[in-house]
Amino acid sequence: MEDTLLKKKLEDIRLYMRSNFLDCFIVINYESSSRSTSRFLTGFQGTFCIIFISQEDFDFYTDSRYLEYVEYGYKSLNVKIYDGNLIQLLKKLLSAFKPGAKIGYEASNISVRFYKRFFEVFKNFSFVGCEDIFLSLRTKKNASEIDNIKKAVIISEKSYLESIERFEYGMSEKDFSALLEYRMRINGADSCAFETIVASGKRSCMPHGYASDKKIEKGDIVIVDFGACLNGLNSDITRVFCVNKIDPRYKKAYDVILSAQNLAIEASRPGMLSSDLDGVARGIIKKYGLSSYFTHTLGHGVGYDVHEEPKISKNSSYILESGNVFTIEPGVYFPGDFGVRVEDTILLTEKGHQNFCSLTKEIIKL
Amino acid sequence: MEDTLLKKKLEDIRLYMRSNFLDCFIVINYESSSRSTSRFLTGFQGTFCIIFISQEDFDFYTDSRYLEYVEYGYKSLNVKIYDGNLIQLLKKLLSAFKPGAKIGYEASNISVRFYKRFFEVFKNFSFVGCEDIFLSLRTKKNASEIDNIKKAVIISEKSYLESIERFEYGMSEKDFSALLEYRMRINGADSCAFETIVASGKRSCMPHGYASDKKIEKGDIVIVDFGACLNGLNSDITRVFCVNKIDPRYKKAYDVILSAQNLAIEASRPGMLSSDLDGVARGIIKKYGLSSYFTHTLGHGVGYDVHEEPKISKNSSYILESGNVFTIEPGVYFPGDFGVRVEDTILLTEKGHQNFCSLTKEIIKL
Repeated sequence: MEDTLLKKKLEDIRLYMRSNFLDCFIVINYESSSRSTSRFLTGFQGTFCIIFISQEDFDFYTDSRYLEYVEYGYKSLNVKIYDGNLIQLLKKLLSAFKPGAKIGYEASNISVRFYKRFFEVFKNFSFVGCEDIFLSLRTKKNASEIDNIKKAVIISEKSYLESIERFEYGMSEKDFSALLEYRMRINGADSCAFETIVASGKRSCMPHGYASDKKIEKGDIVIVDFGACLNGLNSDITRVFCVNKIDPRYKKAYDVILSAQNLAIEASRPGMLSSDLDGVARGIIKKYGLSSYFTHTLGHGVGYDVHEEPKISKNSSYILESGNVFTIEPGVYFPGDFGVRVEDTILLTEKGHQNFCSLTKEIIKL
Repeated sequence: MEDTLLKKKLEDIRLYMRSNFLDCFIVINYESSSRSTSRFLTGFQGTFCIIFISQEDFDFYTDSRYLEYVEYGYKSLNVKIYDGNLIQLLKKLLSAFKPGAKIGYEASNISVRFYKRFFEVFKNFSFVGCEDIFLSLRTKKNASEIDNIKKAVIISEKSYLESIERFEYGMSEKDFSALLEYRMRINGADSCAFETIVASGKRSCMPHGYASDKKIEKGDIVIVDFGACLNGLNSDITRVFCVNKIDPRYKKAYDVILSAQNLAIEASRPGMLSSDLDGVARGIIKKYGLSSYFTHTLGHGVGYDVHEEPKISKNSSYILESGNVFTIEPGVYFPGDFGVRVEDTILLTEKGHQNFCSLTKEIIKL
């Protein structure tokens, strides 16, 4: 990560700290917890680091496994090596503060056990859980983050097209997901954004149908939900294909959710309430009498985490702003029968929105 | 998961609950936290479920995304669908208990934020963090778990051999990791156990060298640390290969850690202290004057999590027992120069041990 990006983020965090009377803020990436936060802040990819931020200081610690790693990629962080004694390190970091000092931390990423072992022992200080410190910072993507997500989308789409070209009758769902994930890696993804969903035939009625050993057969509808991760940033797309023929019932249900999705994308703009955006898609699906089959939310923020703020749901009350990146993914699922979903990852711009996805949304017949 | 396995696990948990005066135990798999616990208990693969265990009852809740999913695979769980109101659900589940009742939970998998929002509101009850409820259950693998880990090892080894057969000069580390991961998937892995490490040339001195865009070139030593996940259970292996020629310095360092590993594996038996086992390998490496370059622990338990108990380290005091599955992975890393590591996943048996790995440990020259 460039120094200037880190500097900008630290400025924003310090401003938050001042207005919330926090003396410092500590991020604990402990065996992957807060990993996306530390990556967002510094670009660090590893599973262990401690980040300490005060008005004057910025300290970054990691363990010896990453010694050489940070030497290569993170020189500007001025990394210090953690010696394994966390209490001792915290004592040192907090020694500058007077009793009663307020120490900010991410309460959603610190376990009760960790809190009791490592924070509760500092009885002189007040530990303040504050998630919202990163909310506006992480939901409003900067140019570099947008660029990475856009590239992750391009990688996913290219890989999907290459995979359906290589599709063969009788392939298992797992084989198809393996193929798609391989193409994403070969096309430059650092990893897959999540376990690829390939749900075919009756299994398509599962919104979270992990790829199974089921063979994909003639007549099947297949939901593929996939994404790539590039420099820590993710894409998230869903497309549907049919094998050999397209059952008119599939097409009919798909047309409903596609028009719901198109209208929701069209409506997306800064200043809108996230629940209202959910309502746009839900309204169309209701008009066709299918609302009871649309069992999940319309979408979710995408960034360093595949699921992050803002949630686009019936009950969410986030005011959308430019720089937000999120999915629009309506779907309907008929138990024991079939399901359909379509999903794009979009960006809100000053004037409206930009759809990162350009992959056809027609049901492809293979 | 077969009913009998679940039944046995519930019996053990209920016994623990009685001896610790717990009225019930609650597992919260909330967006992947405790996911491995719920998979271990029930086989459920999803990212959200609530499991409630008392002496009389066993309740399993998940959300509508998994409705059809559990219908297919988990009928015996008698799954109930969670309606999105957790406080209401907890009220219902806890309504049978008197004030002062002790509610067990996994303190290492519940965030402070979650605890405050959902547990702290129940002021009449005492929430007791108890990790150790699963310690002996999860460290002592049953026949089905052992079988899955063994198969995961077979998949990884076969895939490694297929990948080095396909190796080409000038391939990037990322390309090689993509290839290996693809082979594992094609050979039946549900997913990769973790982000494959491919660290070549100077990058081999990073114990956690995630695969990069660096091209693997003639003269390079390459550390590959990889594993497959099958039915939720993982394998973990590290092998080293050299390109075109084997630098005698690489061979010399490798021979030290290989003999340390072989001796540690030979020494592995039930009743031994985990720190003593670490000491066996560390002793050999010290004898050759390389102990300051062996910067990590000797190994870790492998199961539903890739890193779990028992830790095999200088400071761990676990008494090893038959049924434990863990890695033995000594390595030495010379900053800015190169590194070597070798790793097997082994099982402790009544009589001693069984090495799941049979892949050659000679440095392969490609």
